[in-house]
Amino acid sequence: MAPAALVAPSAAPDFKFTAQAIKKSHHSTTAASALDLDIGEVTVENIQRLYACDAATPTDVVRATYRQIHSHPDKAVWITLVPESKALAAAEQLERQYPDPGSRPPLYGVNFSVKDSIDIAGLPTTLACPTYAYTAAQTAPVVQRLLSAGAILIGKTNLDQFATGLNGTRSPYGMPRCVHDSDYVSGGSSSGSVVSVAAGLVAFAVATDTAGSTRVPAALNGMVGVKPTLGTISTVGLVPACKTADCITVIAKTVQSARMALRTMCAYDENDVYARDEAQLSVLAAQPSWWDASSNGRVRYALPPPDAVSAALSEPYAALFHKVTTKLPTISFMDPDHGAGFDYSPLASANAMLYGSSIVAQRLVAFKSYMDTHSMEGMHPVVRDIFRASQGFDAVRAYEDMFTLAEYKRKTARQFRCPPSSSSSFSSSSASSSSSAAGRGGIDVLVVPSTATHPTVAEILADPIELNKRLGSFTHFVNLLDLCAVSVPIGGTWISRNGKTMPFGVTLISTPGRDEDLLELGQRLMSESWESEDIVDCEK
Amino acid sequence: MAPAALVAPSAAPDFKFTAQAIKKSHHSTTAASALDLDIGEVTVENIQRLYACDAATPTDVVRATYRQIHSHPDKAVWITLVPESKALAAAEQLERQYPDPGSRPPLYGVNFSVKDSIDIAGLPTTLACPTYAYTAAQTAPVVQRLLSAGAILIGKTNLDQFATGLNGTRSPYGMPRCVHDSDYVSGGSSSGSVVSVAAGLVAFAVATDTAGSTRVPAALNGMVGVKPTLGTISTVGLVPACKTADCITVIAKTVQSARMALRTMCAYDENDVYARDEAQLSVLAAQPSWWDASSNGRVRYALPPPDAVSAALSEPYAALFHKVTTKLPTISFMDPDHGAGFDYSPLASANAMLYGSSIVAQRLVAFKSYMDTHSMEGMHPVVRDIFRASQGFDAVRAYEDMFTLAEYKRKTARQFRCPPSSSSSFSSSSASSSSSAAGRGGIDVLVVPSTATHPTVAEILADPIELNKRLGSFTHFVNLLDLCAVSVPIGGTWISRNGKTMPFGVTLISTPGRDEDLLELGQRLMSESWESEDIVDCEK
Repeated sequence: MAPAALVAPSAAPDFKFTAQAIKKSHHSTTAASALDLDIGEVTVENIQRLYACDAATPTDVVRATYRQIHSHPDKAVWITLVPESKALAAAEQLERQYPDPGSRPPLYGVNFSVKDSIDIAGLPTTLACPTYAYTAAQTAPVVQRLLSAGAILIGKTNLDQFATGLNGTRSPYGMPRCVHDSDYVSGGSSSGSVVSVAAGLVAFAVATDTAGSTRVPAALNGMVGVKPTLGTISTVGLVPACKTADCITVIAKTVQSARMALRTMCAYDENDVYARDEAQLSVLAAQPSWWDASSNGRVRYALPPPDAVSAALSEPYAALFHKVTTKLPTISFMDPDHGAGFDYSPLASANAMLYGSSIVAQRLVAFKSYMDTHSMEGMHPVVRDIFRASQGFDAVRAYEDMFTLAEYKRKTARQFRCPPSSSSSFSSSSASSSSSAAGRGGIDVLVVPSTATHPTVAEILADPIELNKRLGSFTHFVNLLDLCAVSVPIGGTWISRNGKTMPFGVTLISTPGRDEDLLELGQRLMSESWESEDIVDCEK
Repeated sequence: MAPAALVAPSAAPDFKFTAQAIKKSHHSTTAASALDLDIGEVTVENIQRLYACDAATPTDVVRATYRQIHSHPDKAVWITLVPESKALAAAEQLERQYPDPGSRPPLYGVNFSVKDSIDIAGLPTTLACPTYAYTAAQTAPVVQRLLSAGAILIGKTNLDQFATGLNGTRSPYGMPRCVHDSDYVSGGSSSGSVVSVAAGLVAFAVATDTAGSTRVPAALNGMVGVKPTLGTISTVGLVPACKTADCITVIAKTVQSARMALRTMCAYDENDVYARDEAQLSVLAAQPSWWDASSNGRVRYALPPPDAVSAALSEPYAALFHKVTTKLPTISFMDPDHGAGFDYSPLASANAMLYGSSIVAQRLVAFKSYMDTHSMEGMHPVVRDIFRASQGFDAVRAYEDMFTLAEYKRKTARQFRCPPSSSSSFSSSSASSSSSAAGRGGIDVLVVPSTATHPTVAEILADPIELNKRLGSFTHFVNLLDLCAVSVPIGGTWISRNGKTMPFGVTLISTPGRDEDLLELGQRLMSESWESEDIVDCEK
């Protein structure tokens, strides 16, 4: 693979289907030949617009998708591609089934990719480990929901082996590269997922994020990455990395695309033992939006402490995050007045626990029988080292760590603004408890850099463990503390050593159920002007 | 100690303050000498009635309490008794503070005991291990709430060491005995707690129940034992036995006494990391009661499978439980028609996990530093053996066990009838999920024998591990599966080998938040007539 041959966009990625790719619908009255159409970015909303104005059919979009995939120089994106004939058959089936545009399902004819740690019946699930691979018997319910909603599966994407890594280099199926400069890592573990979207191959990617595996690659490629509230999307059919913290996610170019995918993906699944039940979901749904009148439409935010930021961030990232923190208080809907007292220490402590405690042993649970029967020689050497280091914790430590995390979780949650509690209460006295009023102040959202630096592939290969850990400086704690998060490309750009314009990402973090509020906030922040004359140079 | 000297009531215990114990209030207008009064059972409601009709003062009740304690032959009940002068001072303080009966707090002048695993400032917390003991700096919030509500602390009660045991013999402070026949165990680990109530020394006991430590002794002594919903009573100040499953409880003679204590004890405590938050509590509170019109006022119940019952129960217990299961369908408010399909297997599997999995290692977390510094020679030999056997599980197993339990929990919960779900939903699609309708059928309550047999002290000492485990046949799973439970003395009585009339207990089990429903059900069942001509003889 010749990374130099990759097409690298000069700024925010804006891949397009080529003009020839989009034809007039073959069942339209003008049974026409190729019609040139520019649909702009490959997004859910743009594809839907094509269909709405009868400018293309799912068949056209599928053909264009495969043409784009075949011409795309990065061959490390996919582990298993659905044969074009099968995708076309799915498209034709949709066209037959829904001749009436008014009756079409919400994701009619929208192409998408699935990370190769999630089962799809009949396809191999590899986790980027050929000796681990098996053919799945069942399709994961979350994927089945998307298919039932009319989305067309294109293939299964590459990942850091066993979803262990944040950089995208830990796979025998090749290393996907950052779409902006192929000397740089794509980020991971959802490496193929992010490139499948950032390169304009599909409208959204179904990925995962246990420790940052969606937020980091999304930020490194200028994409929107959504790490929803735990237990709102079924994880059945996902091979677990760290079961208490695993979360299925979406990567897309726009907030709107991510939102549309998520609305189909979120559903209670009683077979998911960590699914939040309906009663819990109603409580989350009943939280008043930040944009309600009662909140004055202003979002109270906090930032991580400056020393935590400066200790982690590269020079260009520090400059860009500084730009963000300088601008935020000037934005009308951002309220900086409640963030000063935010205690970041439980989050920092939880962050360190992901790999610095027994929690890492969760990664062994799913893979124990594989390791027992295959030895660890079939594994990527870095992942193998990590798995080896995960052994040796005892059960007492595991329970201790669980209790410690529960404490950090409580300390974190109570720093967020609570909704006015319902008037009902469990017992006559619980409502009148004086301590229950605590936590009513506090913030709505924590704003952090999505990742700390953008390493080159060479840099990661030279320092595969510590540099990888640095990428998770502001991501590891999120699932451990039961928070939800959205990474958005804001803050401006910097120039790579090859002179390419590179994105920067900021992650918005809040308490469970705030997914829609975070998406809305992300969209509003993306609409702000972030460009400036200061292009930060990357001196290494 | 001569157990034969114990006063054993012929049937359900009905200890009374002696006539001399209750005097006319010294601040009443008739500044009288001792007035003979029979208050019946020592319960919250009876003591309140005394105060309401101005027949006694808190000072009188405290004096009577200590007289009763000193004359009670079982000297193994208390580990630390509050000095009478201090309890009297508390009583006098209440009398000064609340001269107006209308303004008195809900537990004004009600005496109670606290299990010696819960901190009270200035008193030792021993956990029945002299070399572990320390003087507590803070009073546990749950106890503080009771004190603030006017209750008067009498002392701290004996327990199976480190709350590890269900039989009451594992303490260097002596073995409390069953109040009905002192050859028989009191049950544990809340051994002193149950006797403090069953012997009529206090109106209620604050105890704990991780694996059955309240339900078993309550049943063995004919008391009401309430194991509330996890996370509704603060466990701050409780030395943990198994932190994810520890629950503070109440033992009382009547449902009404237990209910009144619980209403003061339940309160959100943000310092309790496993406290259910207000939003969760409102969801629980919003569940329609079983007695609502929508339920037709009939409670759907299931029973454990007959082979599980016959494998565990002693002969008299089997006969009494049979009597219960035969009578239940004839009771107007009991609906047997939904219990047939109940799958008991996840409960049975969870039950076996408490001591047969890494979960037992949780017991080491709290005591690790003690064991590191004191060796294990200061420990009770049986408890020491259990703690030794708790070592050797690794973290992978701990996480595996957690995941397994989560699965059992889900499988159990969905067999219970769900409340009609709120119309709001987290996302547009979650409410319409077809799978979300599952579990709407199902039962309200599972009815099990509280324990399997009533061993003599000699029997337990001869078989301290396996026979103890048998006592938990129907209790271990409850907290592991996040259920709540109330043990009530119903089903009739049996005759001990000494010719004493012995109680039998049945536990009512349901999903979180059903505490009040269970109490009401328990009360109704206790009001039924359970006596019959068949007195079951215990042939051993």
